[in-house]
Amino acid sequence: MMKKDETQTSREPSAGVQEIRYLTLEEIRDLALGAAFLGSGGGGAPFATLLQLEVMYERGGQVRLIDLADVPDDALVAPCGWMGAPTISDEKLPNGGEPLRGLEKLEEIKGQTVHSVFPLEIGGSNGLAPLLLAAQRKIPVVDCDGMGRAFPESQMVVFNVHGCSANPVIVTDCKGNCIVMDAVSNEEEEQIARTLSIAMGGSCHVIDYSGSGYQMKQHAVRGTVSLSITIGRTLRTAHYHGEDPFAALTTCLRASGFHRYGGVLFDGKLIDIERDTRGGFAVGRATLEAFGSDERIEVEFQNENLVARRDGAVVATVPDILTFMDRETAVPVTTEELRYGQRLKLYGVSVPPILRTPQALAVFGPKVFGIKNKYQPIEMINGWC
Amino acid sequence: MMKKDETQTSREPSAGVQEIRYLTLEEIRDLALGAAFLGSGGGGAPFATLLQLEVMYERGGQVRLIDLADVPDDALVAPCGWMGAPTISDEKLPNGGEPLRGLEKLEEIKGQTVHSVFPLEIGGSNGLAPLLLAAQRKIPVVDCDGMGRAFPESQMVVFNVHGCSANPVIVTDCKGNCIVMDAVSNEEEEQIARTLSIAMGGSCHVIDYSGSGYQMKQHAVRGTVSLSITIGRTLRTAHYHGEDPFAALTTCLRASGFHRYGGVLFDGKLIDIERDTRGGFAVGRATLEAFGSDERIEVEFQNENLVARRDGAVVATVPDILTFMDRETAVPVTTEELRYGQRLKLYGVSVPPILRTPQALAVFGPKVFGIKNKYQPIEMINGWC
Repeated sequence: MMKKDETQTSREPSAGVQEIRYLTLEEIRDLALGAAFLGSGGGGAPFATLLQLEVMYERGGQVRLIDLADVPDDALVAPCGWMGAPTISDEKLPNGGEPLRGLEKLEEIKGQTVHSVFPLEIGGSNGLAPLLLAAQRKIPVVDCDGMGRAFPESQMVVFNVHGCSANPVIVTDCKGNCIVMDAVSNEEEEQIARTLSIAMGGSCHVIDYSGSGYQMKQHAVRGTVSLSITIGRTLRTAHYHGEDPFAALTTCLRASGFHRYGGVLFDGKLIDIERDTRGGFAVGRATLEAFGSDERIEVEFQNENLVARRDGAVVATVPDILTFMDRETAVPVTTEELRYGQRLKLYGVSVPPILRTPQALAVFGPKVFGIKNKYQPIEMINGWC
Repeated sequence: MMKKDETQTSREPSAGVQEIRYLTLEEIRDLALGAAFLGSGGGGAPFATLLQLEVMYERGGQVRLIDLADVPDDALVAPCGWMGAPTISDEKLPNGGEPLRGLEKLEEIKGQTVHSVFPLEIGGSNGLAPLLLAAQRKIPVVDCDGMGRAFPESQMVVFNVHGCSANPVIVTDCKGNCIVMDAVSNEEEEQIARTLSIAMGGSCHVIDYSGSGYQMKQHAVRGTVSLSITIGRTLRTAHYHGEDPFAALTTCLRASGFHRYGGVLFDGKLIDIERDTRGGFAVGRATLEAFGSDERIEVEFQNENLVARRDGAVVATVPDILTFMDRETAVPVTTEELRYGQRLKLYGVSVPPILRTPQALAVFGPKVFGIKNKYQPIEMINGWC
């Protein structure tokens, strides 16, 4: 996966035109929109994080985005994000120091300065969160993530699918507590860190699966930050020009090469929503009813949307992406934002092959979430191919 | 508290006769008995740990006990013990590697070899546990502890009363997970570590409040390991010689200088026991009824016995020690061993002044446990002075 000629030997990326790319605030807003879409309902609503980034830009802060190929092989790179129930993190705001505290602890352990950061998951507010840390530390964000979407559990990253260890796992909270974990397995890490997130009030910051630039080039999902920006821009401009944003989205996703098969699975009104904060997750079920008919679709979620059933028949499951979007504006609606009476479209789209291998499905396929149906690609079920 | 002339400057204690003191197996059995008494019903029944020590001695292992004064000022000393509900640790045995894993992590963090260990609490199995670790690593056990008895929560140590930080807190479990915590306060440490102990199956090993020999001389409760041995020997020999072990215990405790006022508070049959594993603790209430009368005493516990009420009137509360003992043999019965029908004496004894200061009572006095009555010394309530 690594192109040798694109890597650098020095710590800093070369001063070529390509690498020095500061994101505009508009791009960051597009990123928020796109990450909310790729989050499959999870990762937390990006609103509060976006506000913090806007304030940071007003004060002269800037976020630099670099390509994964431009990260030196021996650089220390830190994937990061927030863990917890989005229903909680929506109200319990961070104090702002958690990510930096964790980063400094990682540097202390590794005896090396962190070169760059990127999102553990390119979903919702977790797709944005590393930008704040990067601007605080004046280091770049790498254009990649660990999942290619958002998943509810921390071991559901491609790094784990590929056999990498999460250690050292660094958990920090709003009070200033800092915990370093060496877990015997990535599943143990999830279990213990999840319990910590509950003890820490329902959300905490996590840095794990850190490693060298070389390792990241082998395992990270490339290009997903810029893909999110493209998705966000597509939705925004389509709406602005009076075009159908859902058609534009499908075209954009197909053109990306990442997500070939997508489309609206259902159009209707949210007539029922069950939601519970359980085991550190926001767990529940949402039901849409079509306009002028009694046809219904039911979506189960655990932070992220997991499975959609139309009148009992499965139309899509994890790892394919399922996102509720406002039927007029196409703004993604995360699971904790779902409310009775909302008029929504449920949009489904295929994920890249890297998320559909037997090894990947063993980590985040339907069976892991207790869904009885075997995984079937969304395009097969819906006759899109 | 430190006598300058007793401290050493070299790493190893001097080779004088006094310091090279290997405990005999009989002394260790006496220690188990004495620690179960000082545990005030908590610290876990010492039986399983004692078996492990017996096996270790059979295989040629030995435990060396040294005086706190013989620890060099600059030596790294590690207080350690198990955290959790004794109802669980009684059944969920350790794998044996947890304490050593934690010790090695401490050495890695501090960049210094651990000179010696001692019990965080001189109660029940926690009074014995560091002996196993010491024998494994061939380092001495220091004749002191962190509480002078056992308390249910990890911040209830004299180190905390004196303002020392628990950090770094090292938690290890039977699966091999290792967690290092920098908590913002010792109360936060307890809360997070307690949650970890639950996530780790109800018990885990903890090293905290580690520090230099100099610090230990300022803050540890001295002489409590040898006191436990003396208490155990007293109980054993009194029973053997057909003397009243309770009278012998009172004499022994008074002579120790630590526990001036002690005595049997009640003699009866256990007629009711409520016990629950809640919030990571064994919580409950035991009732004794006198023989030939309907007089009763009720004892509330949270791992340790906290308060005794005779027909509704308080006769003793934390931090004074309250221990149920077999009415014939005077063998202490820890809270998780209490069973309907047992014929027991409830023995109460005063604690040293260091545990009765306003600062100490703020950390482990009755109010902390939700007991409404203000602390009154046991000897005042019972007219023993």
